Amino acid sequence: MTQHLSVKHLLGIKNLSADDIRLILDTADDFKEVINRPIKKVPSLRDITVANVFFENSTRTRLSFELAQKRLSADVVNFSASNSSVKKGETLLDTVNNILSMKVDMIVMRHSSPGAPHFLSRHIKANIVNAGDGTHEHPTQALLDAYSIRERLGEVGGKKVVIIGDILHSRVALSNIFCLQKLGAEVMVCGPNTLLPRYIRELGVQVELDVDRALQWCDVANVLRIQMERQQARYFPSLREYSLYFGLTKERLQRLGKEIVVMHPGPINRGVEISSDVADAPNAIILDQVENGVAVRMAVLYLLAQQQ
Amino acid sequence: MTQHLSVKHLLGIKNLSADDIRLILDTADDFKEVINRPIKKVPSLRDITVANVFFENSTRTRLSFELAQKRLSADVVNFSASNSSVKKGETLLDTVNNILSMKVDMIVMRHSSPGAPHFLSRHIKANIVNAGDGTHEHPTQALLDAYSIRERLGEVGGKKVVIIGDILHSRVALSNIFCLQKLGAEVMVCGPNTLLPRYIRELGVQVELDVDRALQWCDVANVLRIQMERQQARYFPSLREYSLYFGLTKERLQRLGKEIVVMHPGPINRGVEISSDVADAPNAIILDQVENGVAVRMAVLYLLAQQQ
Amino acid sequence: MTQHLSVKHLLGIKNLSADDIRLILDTADDFKEVINRPIKKVPSLRDITVANVFFENSTRTRLSFELAQKRLSADVVNFSASNSSVKKGETLLDTVNNILSMKVDMIVMRHSSPGAPHFLSRHIKANIVNAGDGTHEHPTQALLDAYSIRERLGEVGGKKVVIIGDILHSRVALSNIFCLQKLGAEVMVCGPNTLLPRYIRELGVQVELDVDRALQWCDVANVLRIQMERQQARYFPSLREYSLYFGLTKERLQRLGKEIVVMHPGPINRGVEISSDVADAPNAIILDQVENGVAVRMAVLYLLAQQQ
Repeated sequence: MTQHLSVKHLLGIKNLSADDIRLILDTADDFKEVINRPIKKVPSLRDITVANVFFENSTRTRLSFELAQKRLSADVVNFSASNSSVKKGETLLDTVNNILSMKVDMIVMRHSSPGAPHFLSRHIKANIVNAGDGTHEHPTQALLDAYSIRERLGEVGGKKVVIIGDILHSRVALSNIFCLQKLGAEVMVCGPNTLLPRYIRELGVQVELDVDRALQWCDVANVLRIQMERQQARYFPSLREYSLYFGLTKERLQRLGKEIVVMHPGPINRGVEISSDVADAPNAIILDQVENGVAVRMAVLYLLAQQQ
Repeated sequence: MTQHLSVKHLLGIKNLSADDIRLILDTADDFKEVINRPIKKVPSLRDITVANVFFENSTRTRLSFELAQKRLSADVVNFSASNSSVKKGETLLDTVNNILSMKVDMIVMRHSSPGAPHFLSRHIKANIVNAGDGTHEHPTQALLDAYSIRERLGEVGGKKVVIIGDILHSRVALSNIFCLQKLGAEVMVCGPNTLLPRYIRELGVQVELDVDRALQWCDVANVLRIQMERQQARYFPSLREYSLYFGLTKERLQRLGKEIVVMHPGPINRGVEISSDVADAPNAIILDQVENGVAVRMAVLYLLAQQQ
Repeated sequence: MTQHLSVKHLLGIKNLSADDIRLILDTADDFKEVINRPIKKVPSLRDITVANVFFENSTRTRLSFELAQKRLSADVVNFSASNSSVKKGETLLDTVNNILSMKVDMIVMRHSSPGAPHFLSRHIKANIVNAGDGTHEHPTQALLDAYSIRERLGEVGGKKVVIIGDILHSRVALSNIFCLQKLGAEVMVCGPNTLLPRYIRELGVQVELDVDRALQWCDVANVLRIQMERQQARYFPSLREYSLYFGLTKERLQRLGKEIVVMHPGPINRGVEISSDVADAPNAIILDQVENGVAVRMAVLYLLAQQQ
């Protein structure tokens, strides 16, 4: 396997090769060891300045990236667009070019517009990490999910993974589908018809409207968050209905007669898409995902820094 | 005296022994020396990551903790709940467990609910420092107040301290009462009847409604801030009345025929609970309190890190 | 030339001598070299703590200062007044004295009131850098503008510089006028009559209402941002009129028959005060200004630290 990524930016999983993904996961293995040592730091990015440029709020993802950067000894500056010149009518490219002119080497960016980091990557020379672009991609989430499956089940290839919930509005779903398929997993999506995008079957995934059948089929269930803030009311059943028909409960899992791995990208709505006993059970790896997120992001930053 | 705290968390003064308090104050002596040197840093917490998790705004306290952490060479991340997943329906325990999964060693937390850090301490393994939980406790404020009295008067034991103001809504008052009593001081509270909690006499403090008699009695007057934002209008006299009957003025202090030490936890409302000439007089130690806050917080963080 | 500034604070360009300005620009030359090396850091301010105290939002200027501080290895804390005790009725002097009591060595301050940093400088002992006080001064912007002119044209003395736009509401204009004049440049202002202050002729600048005549005269055009948020509607032509009569366009510049240097303090409103093709042309040095901002701010911080 190559020791370098084939890309200069992490814009989405779609652009990565299976070798790229495996290199990131293998590198993350080393960094997971680092963050579990008493001394959790390495000097790898000591001469690198990273700007976390968040045009949408995201405390969790921003914190995970910031810790990954600090573990790598990078200099970190945070730029939050809510206080910024963006409001003053500046274009995205001007904002980012301004930040880069201050001699920033890498940009971690979240933006509400799908394709915003791809657009930037064609115009700037710094490395870009997409930390979520609208409902499009969220590649580091998919990588940490794949890492967590591999960690729990030994490998991703050949495993059956169902993604349950609001597929239509989820960048997590899209990045996960690409990532799991590239690593040789079988992918199914499951949710109310109104929350499945029309193009979903073209992605080579199975579609299942009955969550019990989906769970029976799978080795791993990745439960998406119900994002109340993104729904349009008319397309959506009530929360109570969603919970009744699609919520992961202990009863539902016990009926399977087998153990499956339960994942969730967080933040979880206990009692809505997942019940508390399921979220806290030993086969739920939700907090492992969070921990692995730091290691995987360290790997991504480290490998991209080699590409400058 | 022992060289270790009897607790793993600083949840409140109520849980500390007098020996714990003295150990913190003595350790703070060393750190006060450090922060007054040209090189204000020690490497003590170099391998420790601290998250400041503030579910309520508090620039001053957060800044004091952040400086304490940086002087100890800790890695610092700030998590402000106003931008966070808390708004998305995540539970407190899930939020904190997420942060801890990212390999954070200590949590400094402010929360609007009394008992929030105590609840957390039963479920997580990291050290917790309570930076204020609703109207309940604010232990580092009480410790820095005790430190400042000891610094000015040589000792706390045997001294007479009156706390003046809105005792009912004050976490500073409660923590101070516990701390001063454990160190052997006599404590009095003074304020309008409507701003004294019903249980106050059960805490073993004297109650005085006349501020002039209170000042005559005391060695130290700790003047609380009138927190306009927390009052319910119907219980409260007008600001003008409050100022007239309870405000510390030069005239009031001159009538005493003795000098007392004047303290205030800040931010001060000049002309309301304290007049400008009193706040700026040499016997007011308000800015010493702020300086000592950094040293005391360094001591708390340093000692808790030994308990991991 | 002296190797020390004649001032302890950078409050405005008005207070600086020409030698002070030249010392800052020469020192910035060294730091510009530093930030273009692979290792962009020097240990010069390793034992200095700087607080960025912003009572007004300014992501760009704050970021530039923060990067300058980190390149100098200073400890940095950010204090944003929107979350702060300022709202609780504390005075400016009390807020700043509190921050200083925490052993902060330098204050970089933005405030909406003209003269706020000057007031502070008479009452506190730390060095103050004015990062913008209302519509009054913005000295580091003027210094980086002068630096950028010198870099592009070899020297500032003898050059003709026109400042175009809303002079009335611009701290950038005032600081630039002082700075350019002290370095021996000729200065003109150009804009709608309603956006020129009455006292402008007393500053020894030329006034020109016709932008084409102004451009014909100058070597350098510094185009100010139309600050929609600061205008009072009744004094102002429509944006479309402004753009038509004062906007810098390619056609306008081509008619000159000579090349002029185009500057803008950012953020730019493409299509309003400047067209896209002008902003992106080789004779526009807008991004150089941003890059030089970090070097100039490093120089200012470094030189003031010698004055403690």
